[in-house]
Parts: sequence; C-alpha cells; structure tokens
Amino acid sequence: MTVSRAGGSAIGLHRVLEPEGVLPQQALRLDASPVPWPDEVVVDVERLNLDAASYRQLRERHGDGAAVRAAVLEIVAARGKMQNPVTGSGGMLLGTVREVGPDSPLGLKVGDRVATLVSLTLTPLVITDGLSDWDGLGEQVPCKGTAVLFGRSIAAVLPEDLPEELSLSVLDVCGAPALTDRVVRAKSARSVCVIGGGGKSGSLSLAAARAAGASRVVALVPTRGEAEAVRAAGLADEVVIADARNPLAVAQAVGEPVEVTVVCVDVAGCEHGAVLATAAGGTVVFFSMATSFSAAALGAEGLAADVEMLIGNGYVPGHAEFALGLLRTTPGVRALFEARERQTAKP
Amino acid sequence: MTVSRAGGSAIGLHRVLEPEGVLPQQALRLDASPVPWPDEVVVDVERLNLDAASYRQLRERHGDGAAVRAAVLEIVAARGKMQNPVTGSGGMLLGTVREVGPDSPLGLKVGDRVATLVSLTLTPLVITDGLSDWDGLGEQVPCKGTAVLFGRSIAAVLPEDLPEELSLSVLDVCGAPALTDRVVRAKSARSVCVIGGGGKSGSLSLAAARAAGASRVVALVPTRGEAEAVRAAGLADEVVIADARNPLAVAQAVGEPVEVTVVCVDVAGCEHGAVLATAAGGTVVFFSMATSFSAAALGAEGLAADVEMLIGNGYVPGHAEFALGLLRTTPGVRALFEARERQTAKP
Repeated sequence: MTVSRAGGSAIGLHRVLEPEGVLPQQALRLDASPVPWPDEVVVDVERLNLDAASYRQLRERHGDGAAVRAAVLEIVAARGKMQNPVTGSGGMLLGTVREVGPDSPLGLKVGDRVATLVSLTLTPLVITDGLSDWDGLGEQVPCKGTAVLFGRSIAAVLPEDLPEELSLSVLDVCGAPALTDRVVRAKSARSVCVIGGGGKSGSLSLAAARAAGASRVVALVPTRGEAEAVRAAGLADEVVIADARNPLAVAQAVGEPVEVTVVCVDVAGCEHGAVLATAAGGTVVFFSMATSFSAAALGAEGLAADVEMLIGNGYVPGHAEFALGLLRTTPGVRALFEARERQTAKP
Repeated sequence: MTVSRAGGSAIGLHRVLEPEGVLPQQALRLDASPVPWPDEVVVDVERLNLDAASYRQLRERHGDGAAVRAAVLEIVAARGKMQNPVTGSGGMLLGTVREVGPDSPLGLKVGDRVATLVSLTLTPLVITDGLSDWDGLGEQVPCKGTAVLFGRSIAAVLPEDLPEELSLSVLDVCGAPALTDRVVRAKSARSVCVIGGGGKSGSLSLAAARAAGASRVVALVPTRGEAEAVRAAGLADEVVIADARNPLAVAQAVGEPVEVTVVCVDVAGCEHGAVLATAAGGTVVFFSMATSFSAAALGAEGLAADVEMLIGNGYVPGHAEFALGLLRTTPGVRALFEARERQTAKP
C-alpha cells in the first residue's frame, strides 16, 4: 500500500471516519472536508449523475420530488458521500478542478472540467446549495458543492471537441473497449463476438476488436431493428440475432466458435451461451454486472469448456482517451450513440 | 456445436426431455436410459457424493434419514438426475465403466473405476437398489444404478497407488492447481500469494505455484494453527496470518504486492483484499464460489487497480492427473490432506 509521507493513503483511508480500518467504499461515513491532502484533488461539483438503481429505489420509497431531494441531502450529510444505503450504489459526478495537492499523480490542473470515473460510493462529497436547482424528478442532479479525488483515483478531462452528453455517455462504458483491445491484441485473436453488440459498451467493443486486428467480428443482438442499426453502422463483419440467454440459440447464431467473446448485455443468464460461442483455448470477457460468478464457473466446468473467463475490470489505464478516440475515428460508433441519445431524450 | 452423425450432441442435448432446447444442467428432466449413444459412456454407479449444500437442505426439510432417502429417490426418479430443486446443486459419483460407445473421446475402457468431475446436475442417473444400503444420515450415498457420460464430459480414472478417499479429495479441487500452473507460467510470475493456502485447493495451488517457477510463494491463512501446519508442510516461502475479508489486513500481511493472487477461501468478501495484494499488471484468480462478480469488478475500479481478474474455471485439460501428480511428489501437500482427513473422519 502506498502511504504518503504526510500520513495519507492513495486510496483514501485517511478519509474514513467510521468504522475504522475499512476502505472508503465500505465506510459508513467519510471526512468530506474540501481541503486537499498532499496527493488529493478538490473539485467544484456541477452535477451528480445518480446510479439508475439508486434513483429508482429513492423514487419508489419517497414518492414526490421534494422528498427524494431531501433523502439525497440527508444521505450525503450523514455519510459524507452519495451512497444509497439500500442499493449500495452511487453514480458519478461532473465538475471543475478547484485545487490540486502538490503530490497528486492524476495530472489535473485547476480549471479542468472533469468527470469522475470512480463511483460516488467512495467519493467524499459536500453539498452546499441544498440541491435547490433539482426538482428530484430525474437522475441528473444539478448541484453545488465539493468532492475529493484521492491519489489513486480516476477522472477524465471532458474533451472540448465533443458534446458533453456524448462524452459522458462514452466515459460511462470506457472500460469495455479498452479491455477488449488488450485481450484481442494479447491473444492475437482473429475472431471476436460481442454479445450485445448494439449497445454502448458493445458498439465500442466491436470497434475496438476490429482496430485491434480481428478479421471476423461478429455482433450478436436481440432484435431485427438492432441488427439493422449495427449493419448500417458497419461495425461488424457478421450481425446475428439471438436471445443471449439461450445458450443453444447463441451457439447456433455464432456458428464457428470465436477466439474471444465479449459479453456486454446487462441481463442475467448469458454465461452459458458465451461459453458455448467460444472456441477451446479462447477467452470470454464478462462486462455485464448481471453476470453470475457461479453460473460462469460451473457452466464452463459442466460443458468441459477450456476457456479463460475474465471479470471485466472497469479500469484499464488510458481507457477514457481510448474510448473517446474510437468514437472520434469510427463514424458508425458515433452514429449509434447519437441515435441512442435521440431515443432517450425527453420530448 | 459438435453434433455426431447419429444425431447426438457432445454436450448431451439429445438426453434433454423437458423443456426442449435447454442444456442438460438446466433441464427439468433427462432421459437417463443406460444405453450409450455412439459418443457416450455408461457407468455402473457405486456411490454418490451429494453436494454439501444440497444434503443440508434435504436434511433440514425432511428430518430423519428414511425421509431424506425417499426424497433423493423421488428427485432422481422424477428428473433423471440428482439435482436438488431447491439448491440447484448436485454432487459427483464413483463407479465402474460398463460400456463405452464407439465414438467416445474420453479414453475410458470397460472396468475402469472412475469419479465424475462434472456435476450430478447434468448427469443422467438411474437408481436400481432403492438406496437400501444408505441410512440417509450422510452425504456419502452407497448406490446401485447407472449413469451416463457425454462425449464432452470429464471423468478421472481412480489411481491404484492412492487411497480412494485421498484421490477423491484431490479430484474435488483439481481445477485450482491446474489453472494456477497455467497462469504462473503464462505470466512468468515470480511472486504468488494463495489466500486460503492451508485448505485443499489452497495447498495444491501453493505447490503448483512453486513447481511453475515462482520464487516468492506466500500463503495467507486465518489462524496461527493453520499457519503452523502450512509452515511445517514447507509449501510456502512466507506464511502470513490475516482475515481474508479485511482488505487492509490482507494488504499489510502480504506486504510487497504479488504478481499473481489465487483466492481459495470459501467465504464472501475476499475480493478487495485480493485486489490490494496484487501488483499493477498482475492477475487475481478467483476459485471461491463465494466470489461476487460485482464486488470484484467494482472493487478493482474503485481502487483504480489495473489487475486482470479470472473466474476460476474448474476445467483445465489434464487437471486431474496434474493434481494427483502434485500430491504424489509433494510430501507437504499429502501431509495436509491426510491431517484434514483425520480431522473430519468420524470417531
């Protein structure tokens, strides 16, 4: 563990108030004071993006917007971070760098507009405006206040050449293409299947697979409409339609098994199909948070499948820049992202 | 998918009666008739080892031994396999090869005594003796009947030079040392930590790490007693004591982070400690079924940890022979296994 000379720790242990000796994510309460330790960065917060599951729980529990707002204020005041005690989840935030400690390794400078790529569940946070600009009716929370980034943290500077919403949408899933790139290159894989290839992480992973040298890139999607969109975007050599939860349907749709399968679809029960779609000696990368560890482990064993199975780590050094670069250089990816934004935009 | 000319499939799809189109493990009911398809093997069953969780549930639900026995008979009669409908789990079996289909790729011959290394949850099974030799009071079930192995299945021939209980005990965990060997060699790793190094899979993994060339092998164990046993067995260069669920305690105990961490301890909450114990660019192999996919993925991201995380696949080609070989050539491993057997033997 890296502990700075001033007694702080790169993972923020010095910010933990209660209980003693746990990591910030497990803490009940953090010291959120906006004074940086030597390796920390303090950010003026502009907006919180609450995790969808967390917002849904708050809304169902508290009902109207004012009550939801009061609940968020109470959580942050009590815990020094926005971690929903029921769902355990947080979200991310947008802001501007206010102060950089002399030993910060993050490479940020005062005035940078940044998005945090580590969870709000471990980010010290103070809210100073009573959330007066938020009606409590959506996950996007306009907010004045401060947040702290530790020495070992992740924040991306928002690029000036892209619309903010588009950048945030890419940054939200930037781990997937970076790890896909790394795995495809490390294995010199020629064939790659992305299950859920029409989604955000999926379309970026398709682009990453091709850029990394795969010559047979297969997108598996659930519907004809999505298949047409991915085909039009030109991101895959083959676009096939199957229910990712049906192992036999997946295997039949993919045909000749691939060397690397990337699971980007956030529904439960996709483990066995992914294993069956993958050739002996190949690799499955699970990015879906709906993945069951035991279903993957026992499924591969039950199928006597000699496949390597990776837990998709959301952090790969340089992942934010890599994903933004793919968006810039791959018109098909950008088209899919923009179409998605139009679909989800409020009328 | 490999489908033989006779219409069978290497993963046993032709044995699924209900519902149609699912894998044998997901099936409600299998055709368990003891007539081999061309690539199948039929085994005369001698003993079932019920999964511990399954047996516990049956015992708690049904109470006395006769009722537990009746419940197992009913499950197997109804489903054509021993899969507890509540826990979803099965177990494994011991038997002797009765008949080998002409296209079987398993390399077995009539008369071989074998243990199945795929789960009972997908193994077609018929019981013919009414379990009359079983009192229902333990997980070990003497049993006459038949089982079927598919083309793509895993069975180990029991070696003649080792006591049967010892062999079974090793075969039960043989995936861990085989994957440890593979990972340590692939990464040319010099430093390896095994969390839970005193257990069955842990001690074999320690031996595998050293045999694969690691020069700093660290065993992390929970108690002083276990530490002394591992030290006496000479399986590790360093033996440290910490609660694997406490990330900071784990990191402090391990000290200089290792290149490969193997998690072999079957308790929940070991993900963050394993990540912290691992150097940047290193690999964590999770063998514990208590591993949480999301805790691992979000934990690594929250710690900005660039580590590769593998789901421990219980199947690596040659794993049974490899583990038995380690036991034969590593006196310390055998000593730990035998001490464990003495502890758990009934008085």
